[in-house]
Amino acid sequence: MAEVKRVGMLTGGGDAPGLNGVIRAVTMRCISEYGYEVVGLRRGWKALTAPEEDTLMPLGVEDVRYILQEGGTVLGSSRTNPYKNEGDAEKVVEQLREFGIDALVAIGGDDTLGVARRLHDDFGVQVIGCPKTIDNDLSATDTTFGYDTAVAIATDAIDRLRTTAKSHERILVVEIMGRHAGWITYGAGLASSANVTLIPEVEPDLDEVTAIFKKRAENGERWGLVAVSEGVTFSEDFVTQTAEKDEFGHVRLGGVAEGLAAELKERTGIDTRHVVLGHLQRGGTPTANDRILSTRYGYRAAEAVANGEWGKMVALRGDEIVTVSLAEATDETKTVPKETYEMLRSFFG
Amino acid sequence: MAEVKRVGMLTGGGDAPGLNGVIRAVTMRCISEYGYEVVGLRRGWKALTAPEEDTLMPLGVEDVRYILQEGGTVLGSSRTNPYKNEGDAEKVVEQLREFGIDALVAIGGDDTLGVARRLHDDFGVQVIGCPKTIDNDLSATDTTFGYDTAVAIATDAIDRLRTTAKSHERILVVEIMGRHAGWITYGAGLASSANVTLIPEVEPDLDEVTAIFKKRAENGERWGLVAVSEGVTFSEDFVTQTAEKDEFGHVRLGGVAEGLAAELKERTGIDTRHVVLGHLQRGGTPTANDRILSTRYGYRAAEAVANGEWGKMVALRGDEIVTVSLAEATDETKTVPKETYEMLRSFFG
Amino acid sequence: MAEVKRVGMLTGGGDAPGLNGVIRAVTMRCISEYGYEVVGLRRGWKALTAPEEDTLMPLGVEDVRYILQEGGTVLGSSRTNPYKNEGDAEKVVEQLREFGIDALVAIGGDDTLGVARRLHDDFGVQVIGCPKTIDNDLSATDTTFGYDTAVAIATDAIDRLRTTAKSHERILVVEIMGRHAGWITYGAGLASSANVTLIPEVEPDLDEVTAIFKKRAENGERWGLVAVSEGVTFSEDFVTQTAEKDEFGHVRLGGVAEGLAAELKERTGIDTRHVVLGHLQRGGTPTANDRILSTRYGYRAAEAVANGEWGKMVALRGDEIVTVSLAEATDETKTVPKETYEMLRSFFG
Amino acid sequence: MAEVKRVGMLTGGGDAPGLNGVIRAVTMRCISEYGYEVVGLRRGWKALTAPEEDTLMPLGVEDVRYILQEGGTVLGSSRTNPYKNEGDAEKVVEQLREFGIDALVAIGGDDTLGVARRLHDDFGVQVIGCPKTIDNDLSATDTTFGYDTAVAIATDAIDRLRTTAKSHERILVVEIMGRHAGWITYGAGLASSANVTLIPEVEPDLDEVTAIFKKRAENGERWGLVAVSEGVTFSEDFVTQTAEKDEFGHVRLGGVAEGLAAELKERTGIDTRHVVLGHLQRGGTPTANDRILSTRYGYRAAEAVANGEWGKMVALRGDEIVTVSLAEATDETKTVPKETYEMLRSFFG
Repeated sequence: MAEVKRVGMLTGGGDAPGLNGVIRAVTMRCISEYGYEVVGLRRGWKALTAPEEDTLMPLGVEDVRYILQEGGTVLGSSRTNPYKNEGDAEKVVEQLREFGIDALVAIGGDDTLGVARRLHDDFGVQVIGCPKTIDNDLSATDTTFGYDTAVAIATDAIDRLRTTAKSHERILVVEIMGRHAGWITYGAGLASSANVTLIPEVEPDLDEVTAIFKKRAENGERWGLVAVSEGVTFSEDFVTQTAEKDEFGHVRLGGVAEGLAAELKERTGIDTRHVVLGHLQRGGTPTANDRILSTRYGYRAAEAVANGEWGKMVALRGDEIVTVSLAEATDETKTVPKETYEMLRSFFG
Repeated sequence: MAEVKRVGMLTGGGDAPGLNGVIRAVTMRCISEYGYEVVGLRRGWKALTAPEEDTLMPLGVEDVRYILQEGGTVLGSSRTNPYKNEGDAEKVVEQLREFGIDALVAIGGDDTLGVARRLHDDFGVQVIGCPKTIDNDLSATDTTFGYDTAVAIATDAIDRLRTTAKSHERILVVEIMGRHAGWITYGAGLASSANVTLIPEVEPDLDEVTAIFKKRAENGERWGLVAVSEGVTFSEDFVTQTAEKDEFGHVRLGGVAEGLAAELKERTGIDTRHVVLGHLQRGGTPTANDRILSTRYGYRAAEAVANGEWGKMVALRGDEIVTVSLAEATDETKTVPKETYEMLRSFFG
Repeated sequence: MAEVKRVGMLTGGGDAPGLNGVIRAVTMRCISEYGYEVVGLRRGWKALTAPEEDTLMPLGVEDVRYILQEGGTVLGSSRTNPYKNEGDAEKVVEQLREFGIDALVAIGGDDTLGVARRLHDDFGVQVIGCPKTIDNDLSATDTTFGYDTAVAIATDAIDRLRTTAKSHERILVVEIMGRHAGWITYGAGLASSANVTLIPEVEPDLDEVTAIFKKRAENGERWGLVAVSEGVTFSEDFVTQTAEKDEFGHVRLGGVAEGLAAELKERTGIDTRHVVLGHLQRGGTPTANDRILSTRYGYRAAEAVANGEWGKMVALRGDEIVTVSLAEATDETKTVPKETYEMLRSFFG
Repeated sequence: MAEVKRVGMLTGGGDAPGLNGVIRAVTMRCISEYGYEVVGLRRGWKALTAPEEDTLMPLGVEDVRYILQEGGTVLGSSRTNPYKNEGDAEKVVEQLREFGIDALVAIGGDDTLGVARRLHDDFGVQVIGCPKTIDNDLSATDTTFGYDTAVAIATDAIDRLRTTAKSHERILVVEIMGRHAGWITYGAGLASSANVTLIPEVEPDLDEVTAIFKKRAENGERWGLVAVSEGVTFSEDFVTQTAEKDEFGHVRLGGVAEGLAAELKERTGIDTRHVVLGHLQRGGTPTANDRILSTRYGYRAAEAVANGEWGKMVALRGDEIVTVSLAEATDETKTVPKETYEMLRSFFG
């Protein structure tokens, strides 16, 4: 193991509230405790495959002290994957050498960590990973930072929509992030007391959903809220039925919430509307919870650098931050278990 | 003037944060100060053209004491307009008599207040109006409640999106309410330091917008935020160019933000995304400001009932709540003046 | 084991955000899944030692559907402890019989759960406990609901104070709940990037604190934030030195924050102020996180009733809700471990 | 009038959310529209009586673009008054000359603007004022920025305390800023539906307050919220009665809320607690409303510089920003009118 003097750090993939918490903790610890120099590498792996003038971002303790409160990542991000372009992996290794970077902290999701693993395995790059996904779908760690914030934002949105749904006697369908894993929708649907929550893991039973809203209407509640993951799929039939032209003659379709709203209107006779939260879910200041978690991740990642635990990533297990092999990180997607959804389902109505 | 014993109250049109503040103040004052009985009429004018079992909602002081904090309207709403259906106006008058309602407080926008005026003029209905529009576009009053809350919500959303726009080096286009008047967009664009704000009153100059983002990129800021009213229109050409099919082969078009995002990507070469705030803008608890304004409106409306100022509506003029004729209410739309927009425009960049 | 028909439920001790989440889940599950009747018992054990007219609160599914969002407890609370008054425990048992309550869900802290345990042990009362403490200091469960909300509120307060501290070049000392355990202060101090955080578990080293702020001042930052638990203690000497009279001649002393602020002013020469968050920390809507946790607790508590797991309480262990004996519940206080504080301490400055 | 090349700007007195909005607008306009150079002067008048190394803060457009969202003032502040120290006024004039500052924008309250006026009158300093007070008590302007934010924060706090007051059946007394004018308390008391609101302008009638809470208790509501300005005064007798020693033997007294809480407990027999909001009221991000208002102030102040309207200050009159003489600014305190308070009082209960 080569002695560490200069630690590089990068963030890859979609941003998540808490990234700056990791960056801050890694920086402060590496400098104050271990005496390393720390440099940020802007725009993920692109920093190393196609460096620009502003790629290197020297990081000092006072540069990062108050970034814990900020959403996004001060290092910027990209979806560049050096293993998708012949020769780029070698470029990365060469560029690291040129930058004089002895150790690399790579913060990102499946894709970013997969690259980190291969760089370690193929070239012996001294890398430590830190998992990041707002979707909370990594099996290697109990929870990921950003998830709590995303749930909080979506919960707040649904809470906010309740009074307008009720005043207008409408069903409001709210589309929430999650292509393959329904964790955010599950969390927000539960926390906001949505009347129905649909996730990609469980095929929606539209007859059941219709029955719920019809029963509510019989009890004088001709309104409701549906939380639905963007990744929920319906039969081809259903989608065809709801294709329609808007007042400008444009075909308006495609979104899950939009289609579902049209379908529920048809089935229940109750007026419906839809809202797509989109990018709102990853913006803004992290919750206190995510700030704490990301700080603990970063703290442990710095320690992993000092220990030379190359090829590992930090992970939350129970109440402890441990390190696990990067191979584990990308093992399998953690989806919402059937019994967890059943629990939530028991509150529908 | 017939003596008043029983005051009816209804809310019509889209809901606005603050409606419950008016309902609360009217109820508390009518009962405590003037000794009237107060009944809510559910679902706007529909309560009188097509009453249902739950139409009448007796209102007591303790029923309303803590509704000031709630968004929406406890009376429900509808878009029913008795003057759009032959014979319905007469039904309204007859139904009011049947319900024993001597005086009516009608809270709503152009449409609701127009009906109120005609009922007063045509049948001598003892009615007091209270203006409501989240859009702030009534010339008869300086400000309307709900506006401040809508601006606050949209501002918060744009603020929240800044970090993600920056981290990913994207332009985020945020679509905000306002078909004909750009007040909410103006307010939120200004308060959130959006880089560009576009409103329906002023035809957008896309060359100027493009230049702004190109200049920003030259200074190393390859990202930005655009606040755009849903009612902003572009040339046919522009729209055609951006029509495109998504990954499912569906045509995705129509929304202003979506079209503008596609166009800006084309023109600037910077990645873009869009967000439609939609119903989020009218939900949730009113700001303190809107609570105060709506309470003052309701307080004065109750006094107007006691004074027998029939055919009038309450309005904010300077720092005072006055009454003006309902005719004035629907006079003309108050749009954003050119110089106000010029002021905002001077902060673009 | 007697068959269960009617489940009673009470909340005791200080309120915590999330109590209504437990009440809601227990009620919904007991009724929908198990077919029990559910009655709330107002004001903790007082409901059974000194019942009033409004003591019984019948709970139906629709009564509780939307209370998840509300802080406090719809059942009210008290600090009544039947074991502190001769003969009251017998009264409780008799009163439960009179109310026809077969099973009791007791939600509360050490004190409430201690009573529950003794009622079970001494009289065979069929009781299930649910732990509640905003302080997060129960060793029997990983986390308690209300804690996340308290940390979020305190974090938000410190964040908010930063700009004013900086503008006026002052040290602001913020007093946070926690007499014996510093968990909330630890969480909020970490999440808000407070410059120094002091907890009851570790005797404060005022020389170190002084040195931190002097060093900051040397670097041009003549301001800062200190998070301090109400339970932190200093030497007698220190307290005496800072006793002083205010402009009205009143002796102003006693609070930890106030005393510490005075002391730090003396030692650093920097202007100081203090803020006591007090009851703000337990009010308001629970975070999404606390809503989820409390729902899971309540869901499992209802199951425990159905299973007849008398004398047990629900607890979070890892990612699962389990049941443990009530004896464990009151075993020992879980305080902030030294290494956890050391981690936080490494970010001071 | 000397030609303007270099504009200086300072902020004096207590900070108020919105200060950075003024600084931003003045800077952006002075540079972009008028071509001036802009320099910030740190720490109010102290910048000119006792300049330090970091006193001058050159301000460019990009330095200030995103400070609108930040509370406090990037220029820092102080309570230095050059007219309170023989010879300091002359120093100020000399220092301005040394710094090459041709025009000065002074943002502050009575004190700061009073100095500005005298510098203009005595020495012909080319100064423009901008009023700042969170208390909203300047008669020369309809509203001041920071006020809306302070009301919003205090309203939120009282809202938050409601559930805990109710759960524990307590009266919570909340102390709010305002020594001589009760505007913030009035606004927050109204917006939060506090059961009683007390302001310095109207001597409190404790018998009436007591009667309100006794009546509430008779109706089963043994709890409540009182909003009270820090400047409310009671008779000597009252204060003496409530002096008491706490568990540590310290005399705990002095605060209005604390004293009132003790008194109300005595009078009503209901348990009471108190909370002092203190510095929380001036911290954190400004409301959208305050951001808009402060931007408009700054925009107009820059114009006033260009127009050479020396000795004037900007003010809001109706919906317009105008300039008025600095003499007017400090004329008289605007307190809450009796009829405004009577309106609020009609909602007590």
